[in-house]
Amino acid sequence: MQPPPKKPRRTAERILDVALELLNRFGEPNVSTTLIAAELGISPGNLYYHYPAKEALINALYVRYETALEAQLAQAGGIASIGAAWAFFRTLFATTWAYRFLHRDLNDLLSKNRTLEARFQDVLVRQTAAVVAAIDGLARSGAVRMTPHDAAVLSPCLVVLLTWWLNHEYVRDPRRALEPERAEATLDRAVYHLLGLLQPYLSADARAHWQSQVDARASADAH
Amino acid sequence: MQPPPKKPRRTAERILDVALELLNRFGEPNVSTTLIAAELGISPGNLYYHYPAKEALINALYVRYETALEAQLAQAGGIASIGAAWAFFRTLFATTWAYRFLHRDLNDLLSKNRTLEARFQDVLVRQTAAVVAAIDGLARSGAVRMTPHDAAVLSPCLVVLLTWWLNHEYVRDPRRALEPERAEATLDRAVYHLLGLLQPYLSADARAHWQSQVDARASADAH
Repeated sequence: MQPPPKKPRRTAERILDVALELLNRFGEPNVSTTLIAAELGISPGNLYYHYPAKEALINALYVRYETALEAQLAQAGGIASIGAAWAFFRTLFATTWAYRFLHRDLNDLLSKNRTLEARFQDVLVRQTAAVVAAIDGLARSGAVRMTPHDAAVLSPCLVVLLTWWLNHEYVRDPRRALEPERAEATLDRAVYHLLGLLQPYLSADARAHWQSQVDARASADAH
Repeated sequence: MQPPPKKPRRTAERILDVALELLNRFGEPNVSTTLIAAELGISPGNLYYHYPAKEALINALYVRYETALEAQLAQAGGIASIGAAWAFFRTLFATTWAYRFLHRDLNDLLSKNRTLEARFQDVLVRQTAAVVAAIDGLARSGAVRMTPHDAAVLSPCLVVLLTWWLNHEYVRDPRRALEPERAEATLDRAVYHLLGLLQPYLSADARAHWQSQVDARASADAH
């Protein structure tokens, strides 16, 4: 019988950190609990003591992802400027990036794991509600001028971009998209195009802000 | 030793048809060559005679998908009206739908299959070029008024929507999204939102067409 480790709480967290890194790097189908234990330098028995199956580990990481996301989505109601919208979507993309293994093999994960299937659908519903709230906040503050019809056409597109943009970048270039030094530019590009869909609706002030802050930076980055 | 079947060409095609149906229904990781042979009522040896491995079968289906897609993408240059753009994107979505197993487990498929990885990246490049050509055609015909900057912001969003919208619908509702009777409405909805991003740029004529043809039908469908 194996003695329980001295700091079970900390070991459990460390397992999650290392598992997340491996899952993001190699993809869920290619990461076994044996690999995770080896990378941590602990015995499979010790890993098993904390997470009796790979599914338990994935679910614990999912709870981390969901908790981070929920806190961010809750900010949607207070968005009253393009700058605030930029920060909001940038943070959401960063969280998706931090847990990118979830989206890379999402369908396979969901088909094997009922808990995840139900919870992920809830997340998409709340993500949709947050996008609607963000657009509404921008409209109420006068930063954009949109009819409810415009907002209804646009919102589902923003949700799809929020969910799949980074995965698309990965598929376009699987080897280079993994390099950490590209992450910042990739996230900025994602927000730039997502919020770019609001450009035709910007008020004069918001448009001036967009052109001087956002476009200026984007064209500087391109050189 | 097994005798070769009488009509190898036809059997090979029939294997592909049945494999595609099973792959779309259950997802690539859940479909074995044994299952495909059983569904066809042929021996695993007979299947093996045509496709010596599951990868050969997937690659043959991929060639079918790519061939269909290439023929459609070649039409992009001739688009000169919103109606033509609707038909163009509707056809592209229908092809993605017909081979939806590819996108459902794309990352896993690509990580296991180098041929697919390289070819799929080529498809994305050509899809991007076709979207740019379609927008350009609409601009030249006067159906939309956009600056090159507007087009550069918008095009990558259309490509991401084209590639991932149907997969997103699947993740939102995996059980119902499989029902064939929902396919038509799902495809229409996808084109509606994708082309909806062009609304702010429509000329007066194109806008009138959009409102009388597209919005009228969309609101009729909603009741």
